[in-house]
Amino acid sequence: MGRKGLVHIYTGDGKGKTTAAIGLGVRACGDNMKVLMVQFLKSRDTCELHSLKKLEPEFTVLRGFSCKKFVWNMTEEEMEEARKEATEIFLNVKNLVLQNKYDLVILDELIGVLTNGFIKEDDVIAMIKDKPQETELVLTGRNAGKRLIEAADYVSDIKAVKHPYQEGISARKGIEF
Amino acid sequence: MGRKGLVHIYTGDGKGKTTAAIGLGVRACGDNMKVLMVQFLKSRDTCELHSLKKLEPEFTVLRGFSCKKFVWNMTEEEMEEARKEATEIFLNVKNLVLQNKYDLVILDELIGVLTNGFIKEDDVIAMIKDKPQETELVLTGRNAGKRLIEAADYVSDIKAVKHPYQEGISARKGIEF
Repeated sequence: MGRKGLVHIYTGDGKGKTTAAIGLGVRACGDNMKVLMVQFLKSRDTCELHSLKKLEPEFTVLRGFSCKKFVWNMTEEEMEEARKEATEIFLNVKNLVLQNKYDLVILDELIGVLTNGFIKEDDVIAMIKDKPQETELVLTGRNAGKRLIEAADYVSDIKAVKHPYQEGISARKGIEF
Repeated sequence: MGRKGLVHIYTGDGKGKTTAAIGLGVRACGDNMKVLMVQFLKSRDTCELHSLKKLEPEFTVLRGFSCKKFVWNMTEEEMEEARKEATEIFLNVKNLVLQNKYDLVILDELIGVLTNGFIKEDDVIAMIKDKPQETELVLTGRNAGKRLIEAADYVSDIKAVKHPYQEGISARKGIEF
């Protein structure tokens, strides 16, 4: 019998959700696990991509989100476009998960995609229930809902006790992206 | 004028402190920053070391802790030995920081070392105050104290809302270590 894969959630308003998921992926691929990270809602270049390239093919990053705006700046038309893209990416990923192609799958910002109403919570819960037994799943994003928390095995709520945004320092290259 | 390096703390009882620090290091070295991670209180092989080797020389990991027991299982003599080792490692690291050899320095479990009384909080605060302006510092470990929190710019408190330990599932290779 194979190993039992569990479900992780990194949520909350603090810094460290995406990086904790990346660090977990780095650890897992050091154990010869095949890791896939899918980044939702992200399109601009981020520094981690350059390092993670060096861990290919054990660590694969998938993107496909073309919109460069934050949700709160989108027109209704752009929202509709983003919704279509998010749904498409989610369906692709769901297929990869069900086909058992990866040992650990990180769905970065999937919870944000949910919260924006771009995809349905029911579909995510169904994916968790239908996943191959041995697959380890990691979801990140603020405001994980009750049902998602129930469906997960690990839930880490990362609280921003202090963040330099509060002091007016904006996102820095190499640190925030 | 160089960039201003800030101080990060990942604390709390939840999963994700070490991995968030590793993920941050991976991101930073993707921006050509020189990263050093020092692991205190850890001596057994962990899977992340195998992946991080592929990021050398941009990402360097330093260990030097020989004791293989957890603190609560140590005899008084082993405690004294661990204290000596932790002090020595800390002094070495402090010198590396002051010599400005790295852009980002992760002191993994330094807060645990503090809490165990192996090194003094005063010495850590002094290192934070004396560090080169551009150095980014990251500290991890449960129970960060008030003074440490005051001295930091980012503080993320990672709360274990759910952890499979609670269900009797023990640490798994590739996931917890």
